[in-house]
Amino acid sequence: MTITYGVHSEVGKLRRVLVDRPGAALTRLTPGNCHELLFDDVIWVKQARVEHMTFVDAIRHRGSEVVFLREALAQTMQDMEARRWLLERRVNVNTVGVGLADDLSAHLMEINSDDLSLILMGGMSRAELPVAPTGVLASVLRPQDFLLPPLPNHLFTRDTTCWIYGGVTLNPMRWNARKLETVNIAAVYRFHPDFRDAGFPVWWGDPDEDYGLATAEGGDVMPLGNGLVLIGMGERTTPQAVGQIARALFAKGAAERVIACKLPVERASMHLDTVFTFCDRDLVTLFSDVVDGITAYSLRPGAKAGEIDVRQETGHLTEVVARALSLKKLRVVQTGGDAYVAEREQWDDGNNVVALEPGVVVAYDRNTYTNTQLRKAGVEVITVPGAELGRGRGGGHCMTCPLIRDPI
Amino acid sequence: MTITYGVHSEVGKLRRVLVDRPGAALTRLTPGNCHELLFDDVIWVKQARVEHMTFVDAIRHRGSEVVFLREALAQTMQDMEARRWLLERRVNVNTVGVGLADDLSAHLMEINSDDLSLILMGGMSRAELPVAPTGVLASVLRPQDFLLPPLPNHLFTRDTTCWIYGGVTLNPMRWNARKLETVNIAAVYRFHPDFRDAGFPVWWGDPDEDYGLATAEGGDVMPLGNGLVLIGMGERTTPQAVGQIARALFAKGAAERVIACKLPVERASMHLDTVFTFCDRDLVTLFSDVVDGITAYSLRPGAKAGEIDVRQETGHLTEVVARALSLKKLRVVQTGGDAYVAEREQWDDGNNVVALEPGVVVAYDRNTYTNTQLRKAGVEVITVPGAELGRGRGGGHCMTCPLIRDPI
Amino acid sequence: MTITYGVHSEVGKLRRVLVDRPGAALTRLTPGNCHELLFDDVIWVKQARVEHMTFVDAIRHRGSEVVFLREALAQTMQDMEARRWLLERRVNVNTVGVGLADDLSAHLMEINSDDLSLILMGGMSRAELPVAPTGVLASVLRPQDFLLPPLPNHLFTRDTTCWIYGGVTLNPMRWNARKLETVNIAAVYRFHPDFRDAGFPVWWGDPDEDYGLATAEGGDVMPLGNGLVLIGMGERTTPQAVGQIARALFAKGAAERVIACKLPVERASMHLDTVFTFCDRDLVTLFSDVVDGITAYSLRPGAKAGEIDVRQETGHLTEVVARALSLKKLRVVQTGGDAYVAEREQWDDGNNVVALEPGVVVAYDRNTYTNTQLRKAGVEVITVPGAELGRGRGGGHCMTCPLIRDPI
Amino acid sequence: MTITYGVHSEVGKLRRVLVDRPGAALTRLTPGNCHELLFDDVIWVKQARVEHMTFVDAIRHRGSEVVFLREALAQTMQDMEARRWLLERRVNVNTVGVGLADDLSAHLMEINSDDLSLILMGGMSRAELPVAPTGVLASVLRPQDFLLPPLPNHLFTRDTTCWIYGGVTLNPMRWNARKLETVNIAAVYRFHPDFRDAGFPVWWGDPDEDYGLATAEGGDVMPLGNGLVLIGMGERTTPQAVGQIARALFAKGAAERVIACKLPVERASMHLDTVFTFCDRDLVTLFSDVVDGITAYSLRPGAKAGEIDVRQETGHLTEVVARALSLKKLRVVQTGGDAYVAEREQWDDGNNVVALEPGVVVAYDRNTYTNTQLRKAGVEVITVPGAELGRGRGGGHCMTCPLIRDPI
Repeated sequence: MTITYGVHSEVGKLRRVLVDRPGAALTRLTPGNCHELLFDDVIWVKQARVEHMTFVDAIRHRGSEVVFLREALAQTMQDMEARRWLLERRVNVNTVGVGLADDLSAHLMEINSDDLSLILMGGMSRAELPVAPTGVLASVLRPQDFLLPPLPNHLFTRDTTCWIYGGVTLNPMRWNARKLETVNIAAVYRFHPDFRDAGFPVWWGDPDEDYGLATAEGGDVMPLGNGLVLIGMGERTTPQAVGQIARALFAKGAAERVIACKLPVERASMHLDTVFTFCDRDLVTLFSDVVDGITAYSLRPGAKAGEIDVRQETGHLTEVVARALSLKKLRVVQTGGDAYVAEREQWDDGNNVVALEPGVVVAYDRNTYTNTQLRKAGVEVITVPGAELGRGRGGGHCMTCPLIRDPI
Repeated sequence: MTITYGVHSEVGKLRRVLVDRPGAALTRLTPGNCHELLFDDVIWVKQARVEHMTFVDAIRHRGSEVVFLREALAQTMQDMEARRWLLERRVNVNTVGVGLADDLSAHLMEINSDDLSLILMGGMSRAELPVAPTGVLASVLRPQDFLLPPLPNHLFTRDTTCWIYGGVTLNPMRWNARKLETVNIAAVYRFHPDFRDAGFPVWWGDPDEDYGLATAEGGDVMPLGNGLVLIGMGERTTPQAVGQIARALFAKGAAERVIACKLPVERASMHLDTVFTFCDRDLVTLFSDVVDGITAYSLRPGAKAGEIDVRQETGHLTEVVARALSLKKLRVVQTGGDAYVAEREQWDDGNNVVALEPGVVVAYDRNTYTNTQLRKAGVEVITVPGAELGRGRGGGHCMTCPLIRDPI
Repeated sequence: MTITYGVHSEVGKLRRVLVDRPGAALTRLTPGNCHELLFDDVIWVKQARVEHMTFVDAIRHRGSEVVFLREALAQTMQDMEARRWLLERRVNVNTVGVGLADDLSAHLMEINSDDLSLILMGGMSRAELPVAPTGVLASVLRPQDFLLPPLPNHLFTRDTTCWIYGGVTLNPMRWNARKLETVNIAAVYRFHPDFRDAGFPVWWGDPDEDYGLATAEGGDVMPLGNGLVLIGMGERTTPQAVGQIARALFAKGAAERVIACKLPVERASMHLDTVFTFCDRDLVTLFSDVVDGITAYSLRPGAKAGEIDVRQETGHLTEVVARALSLKKLRVVQTGGDAYVAEREQWDDGNNVVALEPGVVVAYDRNTYTNTQLRKAGVEVITVPGAELGRGRGGGHCMTCPLIRDPI
Repeated sequence: MTITYGVHSEVGKLRRVLVDRPGAALTRLTPGNCHELLFDDVIWVKQARVEHMTFVDAIRHRGSEVVFLREALAQTMQDMEARRWLLERRVNVNTVGVGLADDLSAHLMEINSDDLSLILMGGMSRAELPVAPTGVLASVLRPQDFLLPPLPNHLFTRDTTCWIYGGVTLNPMRWNARKLETVNIAAVYRFHPDFRDAGFPVWWGDPDEDYGLATAEGGDVMPLGNGLVLIGMGERTTPQAVGQIARALFAKGAAERVIACKLPVERASMHLDTVFTFCDRDLVTLFSDVVDGITAYSLRPGAKAGEIDVRQETGHLTEVVARALSLKKLRVVQTGGDAYVAEREQWDDGNNVVALEPGVVVAYDRNTYTNTQLRKAGVEVITVPGAELGRGRGGGHCMTCPLIRDPI
């Protein structure tokens, strides 16, 4: 029986979700390389795995099915065509250089799929090279340098692809450290038995194409229901991408309106979901220092096919969204505590919660002020530990890529 | 009965130790101000306190007496002369400006000593000002700006003053963010009943004096016994200070030799104890990436009074130290694991352990590789959680200022 | 009559050279945007043009023909097919977004070719948009933000493409700020009457392809004659690219050996020609602080077609190069003066000289110590002012792309 | 005949001025150390001296007497008491360490005063040490490391001390790289025959005292006449210092009102005179991007002695200043050109002009837009070259410390 994928809201019942258990890639982080890999800090991986299990348990306990990316990739790699497709894109003269590309590809075509998935996500150092070090690159690297890079940000499955109603985007990521994630997940969607026959459209994004300045990441994208999609524009998601996504959605009739949210320049180095997430049909938690500075633009299908009508909205983002959802108003729970605590809890992903169903969210335990405010507003807050997970600066929303979620 | 203070080794039985429980100052940290306050990250203070209690329990369990800095400061502030002495140095025209200095001082002379100690260590924001905001400074500050700065690095009591055999130094700290710690602790030593009559000498350092480039921090200073003192020279402790400390110790006959360790330039932004600590009479744990690059110099009393004889040593630091301690060799436990883990465990204070007695150390639980190596070498490793405490980049050695420790 | 392009040495008679006069792009630099555009400082453009004219005069005076990039691009844009080819790559949904792409392209198809060349090199701000601001991007930009980016690094024509013996590479540049330069120059080579019929091969590089980690810049590439090519590997040119270039050259019989020079890690943020250039057949000027740390690898055709034999060389780079050129030794002129001056003159491009013929180089006037050393070694040093030009951190070698140069 | 010093306005006839010719200190700058020494770039010193001579000629041509700091210091050092006073503060255990302090001081007491002034301003490297390298510091330094630091910012004589009406302040500078300048100039004022008997008061500042957070620099201080002083508060000059200066001026009746200008937080890393200077009695040139964000506070003597009345002003700074000077309005010439040029000309000190008399200013030639605007407003703009001088990011105002200037 084929599965029908689709994410029809931000808070409807979560049925199936893609996550990535902290693994090999995170064990490669060091104080010296972590910033280049977009991490502020290193992580105690063993403990992060325990925390992540707690997180997964919380999700499963509410009846959602959890798909693990590495298992899915390993299964995908049992298909030799899939393996060839992916290795062509991951192991070639541009990545490992002339000479080594052929030898290493040939080797990786042979190994077991579980080991291969570990390498494709966790990377391979020069010291781990299983074949003779031919070519210039292998000659110049130190043993601990990477021939194939670790992809620690796979942990944040939200960003790499995003399901918008009945289809998905394969996102061209902003930074090189994350671009290869899209190729990995595209292979899963294209070849894994659970996806390849599911008949969903790819709205936008092709890992074989260079989108230049048109980059998008899922932490900025929220399908709110009623044909509405909210998209943040900051460091990661650009207007060039938003226009293309909107055009694609409008062309297929998949959405009627996109609200594009420009983050204030000085605070743009984040996804929208780090400062704004939904907890219930009419309730959001947000960090007002940033959200108050958002300018919203509505995109609607233009007069002619392929055209987009862009209009700047007036009023606070919450008012714009409330009107668009035909709500009287949006209830708001701000990041809690005094000025220092609020800034700290935003930083610790206090606003980055993920809803399992309307009014039920998973949040890190450490944001006690914000969680208390949410509870006072009637939200059921399931807390999970985030001492290690949170060092990657992503919470429950970042770590989940909903595959199937009900409308509200 | 007066107490006889003195620290006669790095690993002899620890009898009494000064620590600072995570408190008000840490609640002021935000992602925006933490770097200026010398922290890489913000901390969940409530949890940090739990971790610190575990740490203190581990110390007490072995029979050491633990002195808490804030309690000691609060007790000191019950003495009005002490209060006047400290407030003159903390609240004046250079710190809070003309006008406000008098009003605020007068107010702080009156409040209860417990509240005062909180302010002296945790700071005071413009919003918390208990008197009328007179003067220029109070006019221009935003509510969350600090009139009196928080001193979160008090947590690392090791650095501010250090006991070397029977006396102590009051250290001129390297960065402004820490300079006021010395004034606070100097007040305790000068006026607190447990210290004022204890009759110990201050070898060097006077909070009323400006030492310019001569700065020293206790994380670099290790009295090893036998009249030997090991002192690191990196970002924090300068040759100018080492010379003055050595001269003072030699003049009083308190030490016979100082081994000054120049950290490699590119890795100098750390204390010696972040890469090298003693675990037993003849066993150290160290991070060889840095320690292998140390150049050692021996300082001994010169021919004439006040002169110092300086000689560069040859050989690895561990050999120099072994010879100086008349040991055949120093056993060495390196930071454990592969290249990534070793770098990570050094970062997570794997080498920054504190000995409670010979062969018994307290270490963070997260450094499992290094801890295992230590245990294999016969060291009893008592682990404590460091998920929050460790975010300040200091371990058990940094967080303890031994007041009384036996010789070996 | 068709022109026969080809660069057969680093110091043979320079016959024809491509340069870019400081222009519109440089007038866009501000202290706020210059670092993103890879400049350390802003420039007084009017004065820089005067300096550049002096530089060009010095070149012409020795009988070299000088081709100006902007004029060449303007002439190229008179060809409507060329214009369409280039605009498709410069003005599209990935660069200016849905909606605006069509309108702006249509407009730019119509304007005169001189104005167009100015825009293609100097950029276009939101305020200068000549059509209605349709689409998301135009909506969110401030007036001074760029719709089409300025390309100030065109000034350094050396880097974008490089002639190696009888053919050329179209380089995939390291940073986004420079990638579009390659498209511009590719259009010139493909469509300009002086180039399109000249029948030269493109060894490697295609602006329509994404080379990922395989990036190369001409400041690292030096055809030395005798089938030898020297290529630096630092921040800009990667081993992945060097392997591909070598393979391409070997496949066409265009070279017999590539010496790949790995710059020391901590000093890798520069091209080889910022620390090492040829002044005469057997004389180089170099900055030994960096060059002494270079490790050289020789690449030669492997046993089978498409294979490369890589061998690490021993000895100093100058010895490796001397042997490869069958010279007894290479004469060396180091950056002059004391430790401070040498560091400063390297920074001011003292080693970045361009030879007009054997033993005759053009250099900035400010590097008086290095220039004097060169003169003492018998080199004729023609000095030009660099007060403004030099702020871009490139000298005569960086600012010239030889099109025709004799062998030695 | 004694000289009567005093600066009674910003634009009155300039009679005597203290400058520092680019010299030994600037020859120590390298790309590696320049940022620590507060320079963005290195300088071609020989050319900078030529430019500075042109600058000095322009000043002298209008009849001002020019005092050169190094000559004045050399003359001061002929007085053995002065020499002892200064060397005690410059060469001691805190600066060069135990052992070396005595030997080096003894040596420097003996050398000729001209050589000594060079060392006191230009620094001394380990390699230049004229005595045996005793002590720890000399042992650990590399040959090119400094035992006595170069003081390249002496070039900006404006900042170190400032004459306010009939007296002077000896400023505690913000950064360590400049603190020693104050000691040098204090020695000149205290012992040089032209100053020691001149009978002027020091309003505030004592190089033997540590002012902590109370720091001030002359680029922020402008005596406007009529008992009014304008003082900027940004990175360098703090509210704590402004309060003390105001109190001192009010106590002596030297001023009646201080207007303290708080620079906007995100642009605070500059002196007031980098964005705002006077050109004529009623005409200023300013950079509105910053100046529009200034908040002004008026300080006046309070009800009781030693008290200060602080009131926030409303309206634009130019209105506040106009009212305070009893002018109808202040004429304003903004930094010229488009958005890019204006930002660039501010950066190149377009607003940092120095008046020689009302309506006559000296400015860098490169700021052609701003200079043209000034001329259109009737100002006589004498241009001088700044290709090298300007790399220190200071213009004519920064490079002059008026000693005698008429009121307006």
